[in-house]
Amino acid sequence: MNLDKRTRSLVDYLAAAADLDSAASVLHWDHQTYMPPGGVGSRAEALATLSRLSHDITASNETARLIDAAGDPEPGSDAEAVVRLARREHERATKLPSRLVAETSRATTIAEPAWRRARADQDFRALVPHLRNILDLQREIAECLGYEDHPYDALLDRYEPGAKKARLEPIFDELKRGTADMVRAVAAVSDDRTAPLRGAFDEGRQEAFGRSIASAFGYDWGRGRQDRAPHPFCINFGGPGDVRITTRYDPACLSPALFATLHEAGHALYEQGVDPTYTRTPLSGGVSLGIHESQSRLWENVVGRSRPFWNHFYPRLQEAFPEALGGTSPEDFYRAINAASPSEIRVEADELTYNLHVVLRFELEVALVEGSLAVPDLPEAWNAKMEEHLGITPKDDASGVLQDDHWAIGYFGYFPTYTLGNILSVQLFETALKEHPGIPAQMERGEFTSLLAWLRENIHRHGKKHDPEALVEKATGRPPDTTPYLNYLREKFGALYDF
Amino acid sequence: MNLDKRTRSLVDYLAAAADLDSAASVLHWDHQTYMPPGGVGSRAEALATLSRLSHDITASNETARLIDAAGDPEPGSDAEAVVRLARREHERATKLPSRLVAETSRATTIAEPAWRRARADQDFRALVPHLRNILDLQREIAECLGYEDHPYDALLDRYEPGAKKARLEPIFDELKRGTADMVRAVAAVSDDRTAPLRGAFDEGRQEAFGRSIASAFGYDWGRGRQDRAPHPFCINFGGPGDVRITTRYDPACLSPALFATLHEAGHALYEQGVDPTYTRTPLSGGVSLGIHESQSRLWENVVGRSRPFWNHFYPRLQEAFPEALGGTSPEDFYRAINAASPSEIRVEADELTYNLHVVLRFELEVALVEGSLAVPDLPEAWNAKMEEHLGITPKDDASGVLQDDHWAIGYFGYFPTYTLGNILSVQLFETALKEHPGIPAQMERGEFTSLLAWLRENIHRHGKKHDPEALVEKATGRPPDTTPYLNYLREKFGALYDF
Repeated sequence: MNLDKRTRSLVDYLAAAADLDSAASVLHWDHQTYMPPGGVGSRAEALATLSRLSHDITASNETARLIDAAGDPEPGSDAEAVVRLARREHERATKLPSRLVAETSRATTIAEPAWRRARADQDFRALVPHLRNILDLQREIAECLGYEDHPYDALLDRYEPGAKKARLEPIFDELKRGTADMVRAVAAVSDDRTAPLRGAFDEGRQEAFGRSIASAFGYDWGRGRQDRAPHPFCINFGGPGDVRITTRYDPACLSPALFATLHEAGHALYEQGVDPTYTRTPLSGGVSLGIHESQSRLWENVVGRSRPFWNHFYPRLQEAFPEALGGTSPEDFYRAINAASPSEIRVEADELTYNLHVVLRFELEVALVEGSLAVPDLPEAWNAKMEEHLGITPKDDASGVLQDDHWAIGYFGYFPTYTLGNILSVQLFETALKEHPGIPAQMERGEFTSLLAWLRENIHRHGKKHDPEALVEKATGRPPDTTPYLNYLREKFGALYDF
Repeated sequence: MNLDKRTRSLVDYLAAAADLDSAASVLHWDHQTYMPPGGVGSRAEALATLSRLSHDITASNETARLIDAAGDPEPGSDAEAVVRLARREHERATKLPSRLVAETSRATTIAEPAWRRARADQDFRALVPHLRNILDLQREIAECLGYEDHPYDALLDRYEPGAKKARLEPIFDELKRGTADMVRAVAAVSDDRTAPLRGAFDEGRQEAFGRSIASAFGYDWGRGRQDRAPHPFCINFGGPGDVRITTRYDPACLSPALFATLHEAGHALYEQGVDPTYTRTPLSGGVSLGIHESQSRLWENVVGRSRPFWNHFYPRLQEAFPEALGGTSPEDFYRAINAASPSEIRVEADELTYNLHVVLRFELEVALVEGSLAVPDLPEAWNAKMEEHLGITPKDDASGVLQDDHWAIGYFGYFPTYTLGNILSVQLFETALKEHPGIPAQMERGEFTSLLAWLRENIHRHGKKHDPEALVEKATGRPPDTTPYLNYLREKFGALYDF
């Protein structure tokens, strides 16, 4: 990374904020993995202080002065990206009054346990005042951050820089139209193909097998580790040198831990592949949630639910679980991990129907933000959309509108990044395949070097240097495009479900 | 904790420094337990930033202003202690120029690996330039911090507030004189009594047994946990709510992990017992290394190497390790864990000879600081002192002057706190015993409630409120006193070695 002296001054000044953020990540990781219950109070205080001090540095007059002093570095240079990102973060930090940040933090801290209770009690009405309050705050945030076309854009931009509602709508329409007949076709099939995934699966062996796949992908254990946590996640501590993943194990079912490990390893490969000289600069880390999800989904689904992959790994999996899988043919296993059917719960949905869960949430949260839908009417609207998109009605609100915590914790504009990731996972994979036609043959041997090398070169190493859409265009020659993804779904599920 | 409004303002302002320190503790803990090798670089940067920002708050003009504004609260009140400690920390932080802090940090960061190499290579001369540099910096630190009688006092005071060289010398002389004949007596016995501690000791069973003792002591696992680390330690994350211990296991020897667990549990009981309302204030945490060591040594030695304790636990230990210990009588086990003889290595020394290792280091570091001993002459001086105090000459420098890293990392004035802890452990235990004569009978039943309650009331809950010597006087009615400790040693080892 070559920086002129003035941009270097800016980077040096902001490095303390990066350090505070990386310390906060360690505290978050510990919170989710090892912290005893007694640590909750002090941990919340410590995290609040780290976040406040980091914000103070980003929002400071000194940062503004150093950004101005850095001028306009050469377009396309690292320096230009540093100044652009520093300016964006500085503006975001100064646009939000600290009163609003604190109120949002307080409101979501209260709403999260309220959401848990509401879900347990099947009582959406108890959550209504919380959601109303949070929605009001989100609208205020959108006004503070500013937008050209729609307040939703301001919220979305926090997770996917440059994305817009008007740009997502045609993409989501294409997905709806492109998958409607496929969803109807799988819905008409009534057999349960997932039985092979249930049985006795020793946790230690699950862990060892998951680790062996992460290693084969190229995950570097010298710069990471895997621990157990209630919810699987990937986190990095300020650069590619320490990128950790977590998972949880179900001794009665193989798939949750297995695919969570592949998924989180995909996120981790991205972070481990960022140019190490970007560490402690604004260019460090993955550029957006959508690009991040493209990496996790690529390794979890496009690779990890494919025939070539399991041609290599299934005999090894059978060896690890001879009793549970000894009698299951490779074909039955492949059909089990790719079983598709409309279902209630997003996080358990298959590749084919998953995006309809996202489209539903996108449509509802846009309506909430623009005021055309009122919070108390959400359960009814949810169930109507479920019927419209997936042809089913949730048996209750816990399996419906109360299943996700995103809105209760203020994550409006977050859901679309899941589907962007799915679309991009195939678009990127196909481009890699064109340049390295040997990738499937490598996968048949349990090798992933060409695929990883292509991703490293075209996605990972750039960190936050290019905005998401520019990065995709640079890597694939065109903007995000649903065509490869829809073709992939039709080919894969057409073969599995005879349509 | 009752604070007037002005002292509350001071506490609130300093809370951010406490949060930064508690975050740094999490990063240190992770560094020692789970961090992959790739995390070293970013971790060092993050820790340096946390430390710098905490220092900036403590040293700030705003802190000075708030201390002045707090005035002179009522003597003996929490507010008075807050102001006294805040002033001391502020003065310490402002007296040391940041150039000196940074140079010391840099010098010790380089010297630590140099010490490792020197020890491995048996090459003290390679360490000489590093030690010279660090000694110069320590002298400069002493001048900056200021002292009344001797520069060593300024260094010592960092670890044991209020302690002085002139106060330690008579204590150490009493120990030397009081143990000389006992050390000669055990040196004359040539049998090795430690054989029962060696054998096959499954690590999982060692861990379970150690946990059961920590639980019996009263360690609260809801406010702590135990992990593995290369060097056992205890650490707290900003209050009594999260106090963790670590240990390491030797599958061929029982004693290292067992007594390390008892030792660290002793430290942890102290931290878990501090008044929770002191959290995020200057009164939080143990008051000094000497008092801390009194707690760890009390549980490790006075309790954990006693007959009443093992009358209860030895049958359980035999049950856990029937093959290794089935043939060892309780008496032989008791003699094994209390085997004494002059030896080369401090951390492996028994209760009787341990303090002579400390006296030796104290005498040498005082001589180094005042300039009467030159760094290159250290190995010769070391060996002469070993002969003088323990009657042996180390076989090489790795077993001699190079065994500890303290000087290489700038810990001048640290060693005496180990011996202060030993002395106080017995002084405190005997006072508790006078007030609760049933303690030994409780120990015979594996119960420690009266002992813990006495320590909680008289030591733990006070945190840093009283300076160490005042705390000891308050708890025992007199200043640190070697008499109970020397009597304890004579009674215990006289019975074991027939003198």
